[in-house]
Amino acid sequence: MINKVLIANRGEIAVRIIRACREMGIETVAVYSTADANALHTQLADEALCIGPPAPKDSYLSAYNILSAASISGADAIHPGYGFLSENSKFVRMCNKSNVVFIGPDAEAMEKMGDKLMARKIMTEAKVPIIPGSLEALKNAKDAKKIAKKVGYPVMIKAASGGGGRGIRKVDREEDIEEAMSAAYKEALGAFGDGTLYMEKCIMDARHIEVQILCDNYGEAVYLYERECSLQRRNQKVMEEAPSVAFGADKRAEIGQAAVRAAKASGYKNAGTIEFLYDEASGNYYFMELNARVQVEHPVTEMITGIDIVREQILVANGGKLSYTQEDIPLMGHAIECRINAEDPMKNFMPSIGTIEALHLPGGPGVRFDTAMYTGYKIPPTYDSMIGKLIVHAPTRARAMAKMRAALTELVVDGVETNADFQLDLLNNEDVMEGRLDTGLVGRIMEEK
Amino acid sequence: MINKVLIANRGEIAVRIIRACREMGIETVAVYSTADANALHTQLADEALCIGPPAPKDSYLSAYNILSAASISGADAIHPGYGFLSENSKFVRMCNKSNVVFIGPDAEAMEKMGDKLMARKIMTEAKVPIIPGSLEALKNAKDAKKIAKKVGYPVMIKAASGGGGRGIRKVDREEDIEEAMSAAYKEALGAFGDGTLYMEKCIMDARHIEVQILCDNYGEAVYLYERECSLQRRNQKVMEEAPSVAFGADKRAEIGQAAVRAAKASGYKNAGTIEFLYDEASGNYYFMELNARVQVEHPVTEMITGIDIVREQILVANGGKLSYTQEDIPLMGHAIECRINAEDPMKNFMPSIGTIEALHLPGGPGVRFDTAMYTGYKIPPTYDSMIGKLIVHAPTRARAMAKMRAALTELVVDGVETNADFQLDLLNNEDVMEGRLDTGLVGRIMEEK
Repeated sequence: MINKVLIANRGEIAVRIIRACREMGIETVAVYSTADANALHTQLADEALCIGPPAPKDSYLSAYNILSAASISGADAIHPGYGFLSENSKFVRMCNKSNVVFIGPDAEAMEKMGDKLMARKIMTEAKVPIIPGSLEALKNAKDAKKIAKKVGYPVMIKAASGGGGRGIRKVDREEDIEEAMSAAYKEALGAFGDGTLYMEKCIMDARHIEVQILCDNYGEAVYLYERECSLQRRNQKVMEEAPSVAFGADKRAEIGQAAVRAAKASGYKNAGTIEFLYDEASGNYYFMELNARVQVEHPVTEMITGIDIVREQILVANGGKLSYTQEDIPLMGHAIECRINAEDPMKNFMPSIGTIEALHLPGGPGVRFDTAMYTGYKIPPTYDSMIGKLIVHAPTRARAMAKMRAALTELVVDGVETNADFQLDLLNNEDVMEGRLDTGLVGRIMEEK
Repeated sequence: MINKVLIANRGEIAVRIIRACREMGIETVAVYSTADANALHTQLADEALCIGPPAPKDSYLSAYNILSAASISGADAIHPGYGFLSENSKFVRMCNKSNVVFIGPDAEAMEKMGDKLMARKIMTEAKVPIIPGSLEALKNAKDAKKIAKKVGYPVMIKAASGGGGRGIRKVDREEDIEEAMSAAYKEALGAFGDGTLYMEKCIMDARHIEVQILCDNYGEAVYLYERECSLQRRNQKVMEEAPSVAFGADKRAEIGQAAVRAAKASGYKNAGTIEFLYDEASGNYYFMELNARVQVEHPVTEMITGIDIVREQILVANGGKLSYTQEDIPLMGHAIECRINAEDPMKNFMPSIGTIEALHLPGGPGVRFDTAMYTGYKIPPTYDSMIGKLIVHAPTRARAMAKMRAALTELVVDGVETNADFQLDLLNNEDVMEGRLDTGLVGRIMEEK
């Protein structure tokens, strides 16, 4: 039985996890870097332990420091949140050896899905569509050209061990294959110690659709419908919503079932997200990757289903069976999330550092604001610029958008610049209003300005 | 069409109404007393007009000042909130004459239901059970004794024009009838200019159950299920929940339909609440009164139905038909509200006045905090001590209670005393946990201490 959870994270997600634990009667241990001594998560948890200096590698990424904190505090489980150590299979193995429950999937599933080529094979066997390309490592340029000709240019050369955008090259013409492979190989070898490459067709202007799944330790799995995450700036999600306007009930069930097959085929446990590219013109969807963690945008799914995803993570990690069957999971209304970042859209989204001098958060029915800010809080320069997530829920998409506009207008964060007005502009864009979304839209809107 | 709403109120309900208007694209005008120049509603509205000094009779109760503000600002509608002028039929008539839409019922229905004896007659005709007693004014002590003998002691002698607990006497024995009638008569004549009395049997240890209704201007009406408001201290509600554990689906529909009959019989329009006493042992329920306004505790109904009651009030006042049929209205999970008051339970709940030095509000999935507080806000001594409403929603009552406990524990209001710990104690009381509630429970718990 889990009695005390150490939260190996900071910011709003640490607060989110503390709240879930408190409601479940589970004690909480916060860990913090010296930059976060006054952070909200440090103050809210039942106990708090300093784990090192501000640099993530010396604190929030230090498996040893975190496991020491777990040992000192007597925590019997660790929730990793997102980012930091959340998808680090070595850390999962270290937790296992220390007899500390890692609240997430096991190391094997994490590693299987972290190897992008292996993931493509597993998906193919599970009849989950993947992006056309190679199922084996690229042998040489000739091999690569053959495959590229078959799937059609442009193509992407990608590192099998890749992540974070490294070891990737886009190729528009056959004559550029050699150079792209050589560059990707060198980058991948340097970054991951493995230069294995594979190829995918480049799918342009598609929707980024992801399906939330929950799996228990007994082979049961359900999907909590999809999130539409196409609004991205430089591959960073800006605004997310659920459900996607692109789907009717049949397609929704189809992609949901594909996500469950993907999870089961990889032996996945706990909450996870299957990312797909969705080509609306053809109705085709393609597996991209499995995110083995709770996502930033999980609240939109919570709003439309009424299911507390962090609670379910803890229940599953505690050996519980799924609380819901697929038929139990409602889909109610529409939810939107805007990520509120301390950044200056007028200065190329440069991070804005400062102290929160005045703070007024929107509220009322269907409005949720997940944050670790408070009046007087000094934002440390070391970490992510996301300072809050504004989430709204309403019976229809149009009403959710109206509610989001009202809530963004009400929000006051004095002391730093934020992207709230940028989000408001996005909400007033005609394509966004009509739901004509693809991953290139934000870039095109910004070019037009 | 309503384009600009003046909010004739202050505090959290003014903020609540501003939010609903903003979402609907309606401009807002705040009015404020000099004590509220820095109040949140004054700051949040599109415009704000000072309507007088702190004393309510010179500002928030001044119909002339408020209608002048409506005229100056060009507001075409007034939302009265609760309290103040919200159930003042003279004010409604003044709005009508000034061609300003009053967002609420019309004056006739308000007056009919304000006359308690007339209300009892209307309910009897509509086959809505009333508390046993007299249907006509008490002629004399002999008449009163006859009725009391029939219904059984103890009985209540009440003023037909009564309200606010004045002109009411409880009588335990026949020999006390004369004195009680004489005292009630004098008090009623002094307070209301009308000494008409009637009698009701005193129903002990019953549940206070109220049904939220919505009625449009075309004779359609729906019920949004019941709220359980039995937890009261000195006739003031402390904690409310929806639905009531006392009801199964059949009884819920029965009392809901009775509430709709009550509303229709009185020609009621807009949102309203029918209050009942419910005697669990016999399964009998009795009409108490119709509250012709939005209630403090309306959010618990919003949480379980997903319906924005303030929005519906505005839509109906704007001539809209009801957005929902009875079959459309879901009942999802369980919601609880705790009223957070600036008062000191250790000092007999004496109001606590001061400046909010630090404020941390609970949040996360299913948590809503309706308030007009902010860090640095100075609570004026003139008004109600309620400084916020903490509302939670979860799939079950047990989980809602766990969530409320966690949320109350997280709440920080530095600078004044609050009743948060008192609420926590209540949540941990065995009868409260088991849902064995009646209007006498809080008093009995406090006596035991």
